[in-house]
Amino acid sequence: MVKVGVFGANGRVGKLIIDDLKLTSDISLSSVYVRNNLNFTIDPSVLVTTDIKSFLNGCDIIIDFSLPEACETLLEECLKTPKPLVIGTTGLSAHQLNLLKQASEKMPVLYATNMSLGVALLNKLVYQASAALDGFDIEIVEMHHKHKKDAPSGTALTLGESAARGRGLDLDKVRVSGRDGNIGERSEDEIAVMALRGGDIVGRHTVGFYNDGEFIELNHTATSRNTFSKGAIRAATWLADKKAGLYSISDCLEL
Amino acid sequence: MVKVGVFGANGRVGKLIIDDLKLTSDISLSSVYVRNNLNFTIDPSVLVTTDIKSFLNGCDIIIDFSLPEACETLLEECLKTPKPLVIGTTGLSAHQLNLLKQASEKMPVLYATNMSLGVALLNKLVYQASAALDGFDIEIVEMHHKHKKDAPSGTALTLGESAARGRGLDLDKVRVSGRDGNIGERSEDEIAVMALRGGDIVGRHTVGFYNDGEFIELNHTATSRNTFSKGAIRAATWLADKKAGLYSISDCLEL
Amino acid sequence: MVKVGVFGANGRVGKLIIDDLKLTSDISLSSVYVRNNLNFTIDPSVLVTTDIKSFLNGCDIIIDFSLPEACETLLEECLKTPKPLVIGTTGLSAHQLNLLKQASEKMPVLYATNMSLGVALLNKLVYQASAALDGFDIEIVEMHHKHKKDAPSGTALTLGESAARGRGLDLDKVRVSGRDGNIGERSEDEIAVMALRGGDIVGRHTVGFYNDGEFIELNHTATSRNTFSKGAIRAATWLADKKAGLYSISDCLEL
Amino acid sequence: MVKVGVFGANGRVGKLIIDDLKLTSDISLSSVYVRNNLNFTIDPSVLVTTDIKSFLNGCDIIIDFSLPEACETLLEECLKTPKPLVIGTTGLSAHQLNLLKQASEKMPVLYATNMSLGVALLNKLVYQASAALDGFDIEIVEMHHKHKKDAPSGTALTLGESAARGRGLDLDKVRVSGRDGNIGERSEDEIAVMALRGGDIVGRHTVGFYNDGEFIELNHTATSRNTFSKGAIRAATWLADKKAGLYSISDCLEL
Repeated sequence: MVKVGVFGANGRVGKLIIDDLKLTSDISLSSVYVRNNLNFTIDPSVLVTTDIKSFLNGCDIIIDFSLPEACETLLEECLKTPKPLVIGTTGLSAHQLNLLKQASEKMPVLYATNMSLGVALLNKLVYQASAALDGFDIEIVEMHHKHKKDAPSGTALTLGESAARGRGLDLDKVRVSGRDGNIGERSEDEIAVMALRGGDIVGRHTVGFYNDGEFIELNHTATSRNTFSKGAIRAATWLADKKAGLYSISDCLEL
Repeated sequence: MVKVGVFGANGRVGKLIIDDLKLTSDISLSSVYVRNNLNFTIDPSVLVTTDIKSFLNGCDIIIDFSLPEACETLLEECLKTPKPLVIGTTGLSAHQLNLLKQASEKMPVLYATNMSLGVALLNKLVYQASAALDGFDIEIVEMHHKHKKDAPSGTALTLGESAARGRGLDLDKVRVSGRDGNIGERSEDEIAVMALRGGDIVGRHTVGFYNDGEFIELNHTATSRNTFSKGAIRAATWLADKKAGLYSISDCLEL
Repeated sequence: MVKVGVFGANGRVGKLIIDDLKLTSDISLSSVYVRNNLNFTIDPSVLVTTDIKSFLNGCDIIIDFSLPEACETLLEECLKTPKPLVIGTTGLSAHQLNLLKQASEKMPVLYATNMSLGVALLNKLVYQASAALDGFDIEIVEMHHKHKKDAPSGTALTLGESAARGRGLDLDKVRVSGRDGNIGERSEDEIAVMALRGGDIVGRHTVGFYNDGEFIELNHTATSRNTFSKGAIRAATWLADKKAGLYSISDCLEL
Repeated sequence: MVKVGVFGANGRVGKLIIDDLKLTSDISLSSVYVRNNLNFTIDPSVLVTTDIKSFLNGCDIIIDFSLPEACETLLEECLKTPKPLVIGTTGLSAHQLNLLKQASEKMPVLYATNMSLGVALLNKLVYQASAALDGFDIEIVEMHHKHKKDAPSGTALTLGESAARGRGLDLDKVRVSGRDGNIGERSEDEIAVMALRGGDIVGRHTVGFYNDGEFIELNHTATSRNTFSKGAIRAATWLADKKAGLYSISDCLEL
């Protein structure tokens, strides 16, 4: 049984992780780090502490969804007391990222700003399909809620890069974001990345490969904003027995 | 039993109509007009003729998929001998369209450059949904084969106009054909009409209505280029007992 | 400005309605009925009361999402003091439904156990498509989360009935719920209603109409369980100036 | 430049292959075997012959879409004069399959009754997704034209087997082909394979993986019956420099 310590237990994702760990069988919650509130409602077998050293001693592996400064403190402590780390904290500075790399030389560190297993898998499938189906036209459509202010989504661009890489192309040179007027026949290399907006759509991405006679469409849909927790737990289970190194969420898919 | 005369029997759609009329029960082929080739392989009960007057006398209603000049001759003849007319010929000149209007004062004339029943229906449904679901964001996506040179498709623009009309909007003022960069939050009135291109897709159109908590997507897909024949036969069956006037394919849907 | 009274303000939907009424412009919250808790956090201009008579006097129209017994009390009071009623309470007994019918003779009453505008609209569109596209094969697919215990969903059956009615068919006689083995060619009249289960899908319904050369697919997707609130507010706005009678959510779509 | 010999040149797929080879750059048509008709309209540089030995000498690799008996003759001849073989002939007897295996010991033989690249790829992606996304519910939906007499399609069953294999399951034990009534909660291992029928749909297959918070749907759609030709040419290009052995269409995807 892998014993998990949750760092950032009061955050939105931290709370979800604690909840989701109640449903797992080969990995369980053993310690929780909180900054100042010991009135944390939780099973009495779990260590709740404001002391990082005690927190580290109470677990085999750490899942961190905190804030950059707190994450920095954690990384510094782990450089002294190595422990496998799953880091989901966003907004790390160059200095903090550097610490993270140093840590990954002494312990296994999995770092991902998007812990969705589905998106990580889709990227792998898209790369394979793009490479295998040369000659098929590639078109990407993403949809998000009406409040999203940028387009296309970061995930859509990453998918586009996976598709482009499968063809040896540079997405920046072949990306199309709209079509209007007398555009002429589609060029072979172009990759459309079209952005739809509306309602409360959490996130929907489709990558299509079109040929004479057949086409393939690979779709990922997020139905809630809670996908990171499950991905982080999966990542921790996988990371526990790995050797030192820097890993991404897609490594733990082990395709 | 309605007796149909096919004008333009050697054209692609004309041939399909003759084939499809073998499968119908309350309407059947009775006469065929050809310009100069009487070696037309067909059931001996069908009149094959190069004489328009005989052709007209041999049928109760006419389906025309010919060329503008031939259609003009037909219209002139029908002005003398009125007969219900289903006209699918494209590229009519202003003069020819004027003849068509004159004809529609003496006989029922159904004129449509796209005889697809599905597209006609979708336009009606889109208008209703747009009017009923005010506050829902509207997004349209069309996809066609890689050889199509213009975007968006005429059908997508017509669907966009149906959607805009349901809201009292002018499509030209609210249409968006691409999104890229820091676009800000979606405005309430905008209607995206996005064009995808690839493979040999005959035609796919989706109109979506998105709100907090739910969305509706209405899709039409053409699976072959042969939809006009069935639409024309349906139109003829419907038009046979109508009074003089100018009709469209959507009239015969009788919603 | 229509003044709304919310009956059942402590229930899940009641709370959502109070929240959503903050965003409306031509209808606003004026009174709230609670059973015993006056410590209700709300704008001070809103009357919070445990007295039904005061509650009724404080509003022009009532939205009720309560429990059957409370709803019964409300209906009895309204029979004395008529007031437009939007009723979303489920599980009403025969006696309570009878009271509701009596009330609808004196005041406008809109009664719906599913207040989703999208589903109501889809039913209308499906009926029209089914009637207009005779000869097109009809297939329905619904998908819900893995915990749903019955199949197909009530909404899917209602959609199937709309489709069957458009053809003059009885759904019970033509419904197919699975296909396996040497089933032979599809019969013209059959209507498949297939149920998928998985993940946390709130509700997805697609009704397809398939012909040689083209098909239409009409889809509704619920993205959260909160669609009833918006539907009820829309219903109230519409109902406010109607004459006595029993209405459904689809009446207020005014197609 | 790889020189291709087409065996079965008068068949439907054979003709398509000859057409499609006009568009290729690193592989070209060099010889054609016909049974008795030398009046074959083709570029004069191509050898058209009724003699198998001349046919074999005129090419580097053979694509065969013929009939079982003709294929048998070809295999026997190749056992004497080894030559890379792409075999798409269906309905081979046990004896003929045995000859094919013998041939594969002396030369590279790629044998596939479905030469669609897209379907082969989808099977690989489905296997990977199933293995990587354990805990996600798997549901498969296929759709074919109304004339198809069996259900589910062979392709859907193969996809189901790929999905089951990714989980270490036996499809026969976990397959569900319909849901109706009080079915209870979905069991973790079940895999639905649902068959839709309607219109002229050539073939549409979707494999979905559903979890709390996200889902993935992988779709293949055939838009015409002409996908085998392109797959066979791709297979021939790939097979030309391989060593002796028995290959499948998915081997040439080289994922």
